[in-house]
Amino acid sequence: MNKVVAFVQGASRGIGLHFAKDLAKKPNAFVIASCRDPDNAVNLQALSNQVNNVDLLRIDVTNEDDIKHAAVYIKEKYNSKLDLLINIAGMLSPSGRGETSLREVSVQALEETFKVNTFGPLLVAKHFGQFLQNGNGGFGAKSESEKLKHSGVLVNMSAKVGSIGDNSLGGWYSYRLSKAALNMVTKNLSIELGRGRKKVICVSLHPGSVDTDLSRPYLKSIPTERLFSPEYSVSCLMNVIDNLNVHDTGKFFSWDGSELPY
Amino acid sequence: MNKVVAFVQGASRGIGLHFAKDLAKKPNAFVIASCRDPDNAVNLQALSNQVNNVDLLRIDVTNEDDIKHAAVYIKEKYNSKLDLLINIAGMLSPSGRGETSLREVSVQALEETFKVNTFGPLLVAKHFGQFLQNGNGGFGAKSESEKLKHSGVLVNMSAKVGSIGDNSLGGWYSYRLSKAALNMVTKNLSIELGRGRKKVICVSLHPGSVDTDLSRPYLKSIPTERLFSPEYSVSCLMNVIDNLNVHDTGKFFSWDGSELPY
Repeated sequence: MNKVVAFVQGASRGIGLHFAKDLAKKPNAFVIASCRDPDNAVNLQALSNQVNNVDLLRIDVTNEDDIKHAAVYIKEKYNSKLDLLINIAGMLSPSGRGETSLREVSVQALEETFKVNTFGPLLVAKHFGQFLQNGNGGFGAKSESEKLKHSGVLVNMSAKVGSIGDNSLGGWYSYRLSKAALNMVTKNLSIELGRGRKKVICVSLHPGSVDTDLSRPYLKSIPTERLFSPEYSVSCLMNVIDNLNVHDTGKFFSWDGSELPY
Repeated sequence: MNKVVAFVQGASRGIGLHFAKDLAKKPNAFVIASCRDPDNAVNLQALSNQVNNVDLLRIDVTNEDDIKHAAVYIKEKYNSKLDLLINIAGMLSPSGRGETSLREVSVQALEETFKVNTFGPLLVAKHFGQFLQNGNGGFGAKSESEKLKHSGVLVNMSAKVGSIGDNSLGGWYSYRLSKAALNMVTKNLSIELGRGRKKVICVSLHPGSVDTDLSRPYLKSIPTERLFSPEYSVSCLMNVIDNLNVHDTGKFFSWDGSELPY
């Protein structure tokens, strides 16, 4: 059985933690799980102690040096090879609350949010994109046709509120703008990493309304029984990832596999 | 004849300068034209000296205090009323060259580009949006129906390369990301400034391939005779603006009035 290597960026809690857990269950998988502060990531530490295929790394995506160091580590320990990269770390805004009106918009909040939600995933792709081009296509749909084969899968965790076309409520300036720009990151990466023989499938995903620390204050209007657990969301998203092929690259999918407008 | 007030942000040269010139020709218009450095904006100074309806203001959109001071000025001199606001100032990247690959991506360049192209127009809307709600609908299509009436028109100068759906070449990370996010700004503003009785029509516009200082290095592959002059582009864009109605708000239009995908 071929070994596969998956990288989960932002794995300390919520969806990221459950991606790491889910991926660690695959007997042939190595999971590299990064977060800002592994020393205090209690749940991720517990996972890493329980199993022997989860590797913890410290990466603050707002610090390019952290990403560079991690790239050196992956080069040495994993032979410059990744099959899956999932960018998850995200924030609503520095205050933890989305702006409800223009009055609340500040450049400082916009900049901090973009650093984590947009520029971070882009920097990770800058340094890890080549590793995905060296992958063995361990994730995504398998194809017999040489033309349809891919080497790696790159997932940016976006959000439906980052869809310009779907936006009917407004507000949440920092979050909406940063996720719209992240969708452009995905599209640009799908082109740059989709050239040549070693194709990387790049997609944005929407996880649904998930009950996490980040989202809880905003989902009060949704009955708890209609919220997804992170486990359920991740199982749906893994199903979407398992079915991706090269024709899906650059697109934006919801947890149920339906395509969302940009 | 009712007086109308138009504000052109980024009016020192190129499309912005020609918008100011074009608007100044309307006998019933006051034109407020802003740029970073009016003292060195030779062409804009010449215009302002030739006519008596162009008011020069210094605004660096990366400095919110400049925008606040301009808001106080408009409140006092123009009775807190604008009919048209056009956000034009933009940059390809701090180096003047778009990134051709991930290798060239830097957070510093992204941040500088976003400040001018995305956060600047958003800050201008934050402080001037209320003035557009006080406008008399002096620009855009006229309607007899109360329900279809609008008070003001807000234009963000976007670019087709900021369309995620239309992107087939990749690269130009700073510019593409910042313009995609600007299109989300437009959509959000269309919602927030479209509530209630005083509606502001908010659109993103693509000026075509225009021969300006900003674009020239990038348009080498296009024969000169196929490039638009700023005059021609502005005449087309004014035609689009003249035909806007409340159903167009939140959309992204090209110079010929056709709708672009986000």
